[in-house]
Amino acid sequence: MSLPLNPAMAATFPPPVMEARRWLEGIAFGLDRPLINVSQAAPVDSPPLGLRQALADAALNDPQAHLYGPVLGLPALREEIAAQWSAAYGGTILPAQVAVTQGCNQAFTAVMSTLAGAGDEVILPTPWYFNHKMWLDMQGVTTVPLPTGQGLLPDPERAAALIGPRTRAIALVSPNNPGGVEYPAALVTAFRDLCRAHGIALILDETYRDFDSRHSPATGGRPHDLFTDPDWDDVLIHLYSFSKAYRLTGHRVGAIVAASARLAEVEKFLDTVAICPSQLGQIGALWGMRNLRDWVEGERREILARRAAMEGGFGALEGWRLLGCGAYFAYVEHPFAAASPDIARRLVREEAVLMLPGTMFQPDTHPEGARQFRIAFANVDATGIAEMFRRLARFHG
Amino acid sequence: MSLPLNPAMAATFPPPVMEARRWLEGIAFGLDRPLINVSQAAPVDSPPLGLRQALADAALNDPQAHLYGPVLGLPALREEIAAQWSAAYGGTILPAQVAVTQGCNQAFTAVMSTLAGAGDEVILPTPWYFNHKMWLDMQGVTTVPLPTGQGLLPDPERAAALIGPRTRAIALVSPNNPGGVEYPAALVTAFRDLCRAHGIALILDETYRDFDSRHSPATGGRPHDLFTDPDWDDVLIHLYSFSKAYRLTGHRVGAIVAASARLAEVEKFLDTVAICPSQLGQIGALWGMRNLRDWVEGERREILARRAAMEGGFGALEGWRLLGCGAYFAYVEHPFAAASPDIARRLVREEAVLMLPGTMFQPDTHPEGARQFRIAFANVDATGIAEMFRRLARFHG
Repeated sequence: MSLPLNPAMAATFPPPVMEARRWLEGIAFGLDRPLINVSQAAPVDSPPLGLRQALADAALNDPQAHLYGPVLGLPALREEIAAQWSAAYGGTILPAQVAVTQGCNQAFTAVMSTLAGAGDEVILPTPWYFNHKMWLDMQGVTTVPLPTGQGLLPDPERAAALIGPRTRAIALVSPNNPGGVEYPAALVTAFRDLCRAHGIALILDETYRDFDSRHSPATGGRPHDLFTDPDWDDVLIHLYSFSKAYRLTGHRVGAIVAASARLAEVEKFLDTVAICPSQLGQIGALWGMRNLRDWVEGERREILARRAAMEGGFGALEGWRLLGCGAYFAYVEHPFAAASPDIARRLVREEAVLMLPGTMFQPDTHPEGARQFRIAFANVDATGIAEMFRRLARFHG
Repeated sequence: MSLPLNPAMAATFPPPVMEARRWLEGIAFGLDRPLINVSQAAPVDSPPLGLRQALADAALNDPQAHLYGPVLGLPALREEIAAQWSAAYGGTILPAQVAVTQGCNQAFTAVMSTLAGAGDEVILPTPWYFNHKMWLDMQGVTTVPLPTGQGLLPDPERAAALIGPRTRAIALVSPNNPGGVEYPAALVTAFRDLCRAHGIALILDETYRDFDSRHSPATGGRPHDLFTDPDWDDVLIHLYSFSKAYRLTGHRVGAIVAASARLAEVEKFLDTVAICPSQLGQIGALWGMRNLRDWVEGERREILARRAAMEGGFGALEGWRLLGCGAYFAYVEHPFAAASPDIARRLVREEAVLMLPGTMFQPDTHPEGARQFRIAFANVDATGIAEMFRRLARFHG
């Protein structure tokens, strides 16, 4: 390419999920051995009929569905999020502390743009969510990896040692992508205190919250206590996605909960990149929040049952080791001499199983990525999980 | 705010359209004098029934409508754009040279991310489109203004003198936002040659192309000849929006046409910020491209008739001067001593007309912004335009 290329953009890696899709090209998967695709963390079934009908009705009859809306999202959706989050987390969240985005990836990039520019530093536990790393790369922000080791839990004391004058934030994902682990409430609180003491932001990405074993609007269970602090917004920035619970991945709807002064800065970014979120997506998200609570609870129980099947399966699978398991993910160590990217391609060809190698979630300097895989099991039912373990059991690196 | 704030984000201005909306708060507009809102460049009527039915049908019956799709957009839409653009511009554009985005603002930010980072420079003619300026600000890219003066046309020789070692691109908008002027084909070619000679990118934002007096798929008229150059992709990056022609603003669909190697870099950005464009939005855009050619041509004729009414009206309005007029916009000079931001607020209160002051489109160092307004007239029919001129005629600064 003869035209200029921003070196920060050139330095980051291509989208891992798109790369993995290319591994499937030219391979025929027969009916006797269909592909088991555990590469992407996305529901594949359609949203419930009522939600689809609400979308169709709005497309036909609601003129607002086709127009620009406010940059920070539909007021009714912001109000609904504020009310339901206040109840679920036992705190006070105002509509002015809520913004709607085109998905949770955009929520992260919008928030991070207000915090860190070229030359600044952000701490991410490893293994990390690759799109977080990619954004920091392309902005010229230095990612400081925080290795987690056994149990995949980050250590606040180890994080404290990494904070320097250019550190702007620590970003946590719980339940973790790719690790699956649910961060204990006390651990999240410890990170909150650490960030507050250093005047840096704690970003908590709760995309998979609705499948957390502790979160249940029915029983009042919650995954952490951060919002019970009346001053939560002086340190905490919470991110959420409507893609998973309501099966709205193709509509791109996410949310930010943060101080309203922070959202005034976020508004500049969103106006420039998005103008507004998809109106139909927001209409779908709002309908889901108002009508699908019991349905989502049923989904959560099903995912937790699949998680139990994954734990059982790995307990019985020789050589493999389950490092973390929860929400949509199992994060595992394989027993083979070859590296995970090579094994991933062979698993596609020989056993029709597509999973992402740990190298996609680890810095180049962390050799453990070559021994790890992320398995996004949410779409695979009990029968499929049993079949996956049969295939893994007969595979020999 | 005690948390870190990225100084580049703090340095840019809040979204002008949102600021203008706030001027309306607390003001009652009676039925006898309804608000004439010429602030935002967006159709307010719904898309045609057939398109709405296509959206509703997909929402109900197409499982793909709710799932993640490819980062760079639906293959069928990329193919349709490539085929229709090749015919309309008399050149060869391949599907691999097309990417779909969540609106044209995102197209600009994605492309610019691949070209310029902190410390680089980009040349924008003034008056500029404010979201372009905001993106460059928040990225730490220096915007080099290229004043246009009479006729609002940028001068390639004047631009040549602004190119330095850190210049990465010149971005043009034609028909221009906010200026309305259609850039002559020869002028655009001269900019292409200038950029090619200096190894920098020419970004051509053609969001309003469908309302260009020269563009007509029916007669084969085209606004420029850049795509007839077989090597167009070594310098040109073209941007487009589906929001205007098909009335899809609330769905956020735009496009980039560029070298496929460039799109591989764009894909990193879009994966990280968007994951994929809205599936329903893409389905609507594709349906529109396949079914609404004649309808869009009728829309174009209507907009051109309104443009003629604007030209006639300003010709007869004492003291005001029309600097540019075309597509959705008239860009004008007012005759009053007060500055345009003050006059804008008074026009809302006293005459129920909302238009954006030129200060929103000019650098702080260009005092002419205080004498200018952008009038986005696309939504105002002949009766409304006549009424607007009655109100402007009786307004005395």
